[in-house]
Formats: sequence, C-alpha cells, structure tokens
Amino acid sequence: MNTDQNTDLSASLDAARRDYAALLERKLKLDLTRGKPSARQLDLSNEILALPGDRYKSADGTDCRNYGGPQGLPELREIFGELLDVPAGQLLALGNSSLTLMHDTVVHALLGVLPGARRRWADEERIAFLCPVPGYDRHFDICERFGIEMIPVPMTPDGPDMAEVERLVSADAGIKGIWCVPKYSNPDGTTYSDETTRRLAAMPAAAPDFRIFWDNAYAVHHLTDEEVQVADILAACAQAGNPDRVFVYGSTSKITLGGAGVAFFGSSEANVKWLLGHRGKQTIGPDKINQLAHVMFLRDADGVRAQMRGHRELIQPKFDAVRRIFAERLDGLATWSEPKGGYFITLTVPDGCAKEVVRKAAEAGIALTPAGSTHPYKDDPRDNVIRIAPTFPDVAELEQAIEGVATCVRLVGYEKLASA
Amino acid sequence: MNTDQNTDLSASLDAARRDYAALLERKLKLDLTRGKPSARQLDLSNEILALPGDRYKSADGTDCRNYGGPQGLPELREIFGELLDVPAGQLLALGNSSLTLMHDTVVHALLGVLPGARRRWADEERIAFLCPVPGYDRHFDICERFGIEMIPVPMTPDGPDMAEVERLVSADAGIKGIWCVPKYSNPDGTTYSDETTRRLAAMPAAAPDFRIFWDNAYAVHHLTDEEVQVADILAACAQAGNPDRVFVYGSTSKITLGGAGVAFFGSSEANVKWLLGHRGKQTIGPDKINQLAHVMFLRDADGVRAQMRGHRELIQPKFDAVRRIFAERLDGLATWSEPKGGYFITLTVPDGCAKEVVRKAAEAGIALTPAGSTHPYKDDPRDNVIRIAPTFPDVAELEQAIEGVATCVRLVGYEKLASA
Repeated sequence: MNTDQNTDLSASLDAARRDYAALLERKLKLDLTRGKPSARQLDLSNEILALPGDRYKSADGTDCRNYGGPQGLPELREIFGELLDVPAGQLLALGNSSLTLMHDTVVHALLGVLPGARRRWADEERIAFLCPVPGYDRHFDICERFGIEMIPVPMTPDGPDMAEVERLVSADAGIKGIWCVPKYSNPDGTTYSDETTRRLAAMPAAAPDFRIFWDNAYAVHHLTDEEVQVADILAACAQAGNPDRVFVYGSTSKITLGGAGVAFFGSSEANVKWLLGHRGKQTIGPDKINQLAHVMFLRDADGVRAQMRGHRELIQPKFDAVRRIFAERLDGLATWSEPKGGYFITLTVPDGCAKEVVRKAAEAGIALTPAGSTHPYKDDPRDNVIRIAPTFPDVAELEQAIEGVATCVRLVGYEKLASA
Repeated sequence: MNTDQNTDLSASLDAARRDYAALLERKLKLDLTRGKPSARQLDLSNEILALPGDRYKSADGTDCRNYGGPQGLPELREIFGELLDVPAGQLLALGNSSLTLMHDTVVHALLGVLPGARRRWADEERIAFLCPVPGYDRHFDICERFGIEMIPVPMTPDGPDMAEVERLVSADAGIKGIWCVPKYSNPDGTTYSDETTRRLAAMPAAAPDFRIFWDNAYAVHHLTDEEVQVADILAACAQAGNPDRVFVYGSTSKITLGGAGVAFFGSSEANVKWLLGHRGKQTIGPDKINQLAHVMFLRDADGVRAQMRGHRELIQPKFDAVRRIFAERLDGLATWSEPKGGYFITLTVPDGCAKEVVRKAAEAGIALTPAGSTHPYKDDPRDNVIRIAPTFPDVAELEQAIEGVATCVRLVGYEKLASA
C-alpha cells in the first residue's frame, strides 16, 4: 500500500468506528435471521382463515372431515402438478411442511429399502450427500442428525459445479444423495441451467439408489418479470433412463401461510408407491380440510400466479432497498447476489470477516443467520458468506438493519485491511 | 351329544343355512372395518370449518399464520393437559395424527438415543415390545415395519396381565416398550385399573430405556354416565422413580374431525426436550391455525366434555343395537364386550371360527376388520376374535350388518359344532 491508500484506509476506518459507535447507541432490536413472510404477506391469504366455510366435500364427493385419502386432494394435486412439473398422479399433497417430507424421506430410506437399493441406508457402512455451497442450513441439519457425511460442492452461476458432481457421484457408491434448490436457491438466488438439470438426470451414479433431493421451494416466487423457469427434472430423469432418481418437494408455506400451508412430494410411480407404503404405517391421511381450503382460495395455477404477484409487490421493494444500501455503502468492499426470486440475498464479505460481522451486528441488536450456517457442519472455510433474509421486517426497519449491517461490514472489513 | 341335542343342532344349522342364503340374496354393501366417526358426528364440528375466521393471533400475541411455535398453542395445551392428565408445560400440541407421533417417537428412538438409553434402538441386537391382546392393529404395524419383535400378553378385565408383564419386563433387556390403550381399549373396551397403572409405573425393567406407549385415544369418549377414569400414569411413574418411563398420546380426531384434528404428546421434561430436539430437524412447527380454530371451537375442557356428550348421543344407540342383536341371536354361541366407552366391541366366536365368519360376511357384502388383526403378526392363535366397529354406518345399516354378522356366526358356529 502506498501512503495515499493508507491515509484513505485510516480515514475510512475512523468513520466506520464512529458509525458503529452511533449504531450501538441506537439500541436496535431487529431480526433478519429467517426467511419468514411478513404480516402483510400473510394478510394476502386471510380469506383462507374462514375456509372451507360451509363446504367439506371434495370434487369427487369425499368427506374431507373424516380419515383417509393418503395421496391428498386430487384437485390440489392438479394445481401444483402444473406448477412443480409433476404429473398430478405422481404428486402427493400432504402435511404442513416440506421440511418434514424431506426429513421423513431420509428416515424411510434409512429404515426401508429404496427402489433400486441393495439394502437400507442404515445398513450401509457409509452414506454421504453432496451439498452445493452456499446452501440451506436445514438440509445440512438433517444430514448431521443422521450421521450422513456431507461433501461440499461449489455453486456456479448455473448451479452446482457439474464436473465435480459427476466426478464424485460416478466414483463413490457411498454418495446417496444431493441437496438441490434448483430455482432462486437458498441463499444465493441461483437458478440451475437446463444443462445442469440434464446432467444431474443423466450422469452415471455409482450408487444404484442415488437420489436428487429437489427442493423446489421457490418455484413460483419471482421478483422480476422474467419468471425464470427450470427444466423438468422428472422428465429428464425418465428420458435418461434414471426414472427413480429424483424426489421433488414443494410447499405453499410462502404462497399462503408459513405455518399452515400444504407440502408436496412428487416422484416416479415406483418412488411414490414406496413412500405411500411407508407412510401407511405413519398416518391415516393428511389434513384434507386445509387442502380443500387451499383449493377454494387458490382456485387454479393462475390463481397461484396472481397470489405470487401480490407477494412480489410487497417484497421486491425490500430486495431493492438491500441492494441500494449495499451499493451505496459496500461498493469495492463486498459483493452480493442479485436474485430474480426467492427469499434471500447472499452477502460476500472479505475472507475471514463473516463471523465477526455477524457478532458485531448482534452486539448492535441486529440478528443475522449465524455465519457458517450456509455450509455443512457450519463451516464456511473462507468465512465470507452471510445470508440476508429481507422479507420479514417492514421496509423502514429493514433499511435500518441493512444500514447497520453495512456499518459492521465496513468496520470489520477496514480493520482487516488495516491489519493486513 | 344326545339325540335331542343333535336334532336341535341339525334344526339350528338348517335355519342358519336358510338365513345365510337369504342374506346373500340381499346383496348388501356395508362396511364395519374401521373406527371412523359418522357424518352426523362430524356435523357436530362443522363450526370449525369457518374458524379461526378473522382471528389469527393466539392469546400471547403470536401470529399463528407464520412459522414457528414447536410446542403448539399454549391455550390448547392447557385444555388437553387437564383431560389427558399431563401438565400443560409437558404436553405438546402437534399435527393431525397421534399415529404419526407414535410412529415418529419409535423412529427417533431407533435413530437417536433416548434419555436413559445406552445406545440407539437401531444399534441394539434385538428390540421387542409387549403387545396386550387383543389390541390395535396399527400399533402392531409400526412394530412389524421396523422389525420390532412383538410379544403378546393377555388382557384381563383390569388391563394387561401384570404378573406376566412384570415377569417379562424385569428379565428381558430387549423389551423396550409396551403398547397400552388404557381407557376403553381397542378393541375390547377394557379400562386399566389403578393397580395396573401403578404396577406399570413401578415395576422393575431390565432395559433402562423401557417405555410405556400410553395411547389414551379414548380419554373422554364415554358411552355411559359413569365416565370411567384412569389413574395418572405420568405422576405414578414420577412417584415410582421412573419419571421418563411413559409417552402419553392423545388426539382430537374423534372429538372434532377425523382427518383434521390435533394430536398430543405428553411426557417428562427430559423426554419432551428429547423429542423437541429431534423434531427441530423435522419441522418448523405444527399448524397453529388449526389449533387456534380448535381453541375457539372447544373453548375449554368443559367444552370438550359437552362435545363428547353430543357424540355419545349419536353412537350409544349403535352400541345398544349391536348388543341387542347379539343377545337375541348369539346367546350361548358367542360372547361380546360391553364397553363403557370407546369405538369398538369385541365379538368372541367359537375357537377356529373367526376367519370363516369374516370370509362369509365378506361374501355377503359385509366388510369386517380382517380376523387376526387384533393380534401381532395378524395371528390370533385361537382364531376367535372379531372387532366390530359400529360408529360409521347409520343405525338402520348397522342393524342390517350386525344381523348379517350374527347369521354368519350362527352358520359357521353350528357347522363347527356339527363337525365336532
């Protein structure tokens, strides 16, 4: 560094320290940890709270109040079959959480024999999953809980690094799965290219029971007019001669109500039959009343699309505010993703700074997702990824919080540069 | 047999054959297989279909529309804590199925280490459960699915044969659990005596992680003014120095809506913490909107009791009809339980006749629960137990079906006697 740069840095660091001291004095209490819809987003679905009202029969005359119907309501499966690219006959409409379905599919694979498998996963010497990073902490938590080894794979602008994925999956029969959020991924907003999807479907796998856990959580959660599409993975797998390779998951949690939506599982006929067989010992059927309420409220796939435009109207200004503040305050010091949909922005700070930024933000009353949680074992080797969840606070609070985060990044970043 | 008896039997058999031929000609199509509430029972809860209406906040201000709240709504836990004899702080209000909770507790014990356990059940050489017989087929299905050995224990009028239970549990560290339906048991309507409950809580167990699966499915499902009570198992376990021994399950499926109720799990603080830890990887929380609707509809424990009187009014005449027809037609040939609550009547036919009665009834268009399903591995060694589920059909259909069943019992029973 030359003297001019040193003087600049010293001035920037002094300013950052003053800003941080002022931030501490404001005694904020703001939470950007989780991708939760805001109250105003939930208001979009208030009609559902009084549904199904005086109706309780489904289109085929089933009394939805009683037990039964393990596949879920056909008319709801029709709506989301179209949106998730799964034939309605191969899509199950189930409980209130797709996380539960992912967890439980892993459980059933551990304790039962998957189509194509030689034995239960619990009886394998070693099981590993590929984890594209940065990724979703709750996926990684499922692996950790069941002792499934996690192998990180870097994300590219087209999805996971497919050369690496192919190399690993073709050579290692212990690799049984890969976690994928194919559209507007959590946390960096990446959408898989058609080529990535095709290669995932077609690549040779050493394990005959290798599965893609395709968490299509943000299938209709657009933030731009582009409405990005992802290739049909189920069809691609079938075409490539690997019809049982993919489990597709979806949910209305961020379409209707966060805690009271409907989750979906789609796959090949063999996989669906396998899951229904195991679920037959676990439940007599999902809550069909809530499913009927969803059908009456959403009506059809276009109804879902209209509902999502309502969400976009509320959350796009929040994403814009984050980007604007970051551009004003962090240009040259950090980078951030510019997602076209989904719920998150990834902020990439200078190496070795993420934990300290999160710690300093917490001291200033701004709760962020813990640094590292975007990586397996909470271990971000470069310590530079921070997940920003802008949806829950209102715009004014969000701006306060993001200004605060920017202050922390500047302080920690300049301190790092100064000590270099 | 003397000649008179032979003549009587021959005449009875002829009459039974004529009756059965007439029954076949009626081409019935009636279903007594499962313990489902009838449409009129479900009508009692129609108000819930429009709830929570314009409300979405719980008593403590939580927005029930959003994610979170892993324990369920405190006000609903208060109501059912009183009814299930579990302190509300140790009771979880969760999804729509207590079967799911039982299945999942077994899964979490297989794949995680229970309080007091030396290792995961999946890592034990052998796991066995005691199964009081006759019992509930879906309990047995869970054991069968996970390769858990089932050891039948006979029921007495006071619950399981406790001398046998104590002998087995104290000697065999492989025995990890016992299935109990303590009140109005499925299928014979037995209620455990206080002494049985006390002995279950206090008996020595060879396995440090032995658990009582206390499926209190019919806690408030009375058919008489007596409103039978069961001793507080959780308190009994604590008093006996075995605080972690029992898992309590309950559900509103037969209080409000069969498919869209709320299920409960209650236990010691250590067990609840253990379950919540594992559930934390499985779900972000139960459907609090449905729980709020239940609170608004049921109001309090007295509201539940009033609701159950409505159910009793509808189903008691059905139980009365079954008993009346059996008494008229089967006196001396079969016996049947006279439950003071619950959903089932056990019909005990002559040894070796149950399967044939069910088969003949099916031929006549009357579907009964398969013979044997009241026993582990579907194996009723005396082949004499038939479970009758009277609640679903209306009284006229039920009477037709029960008359038909009686005809089948007479035919099969007299044929057996004649061939003896």
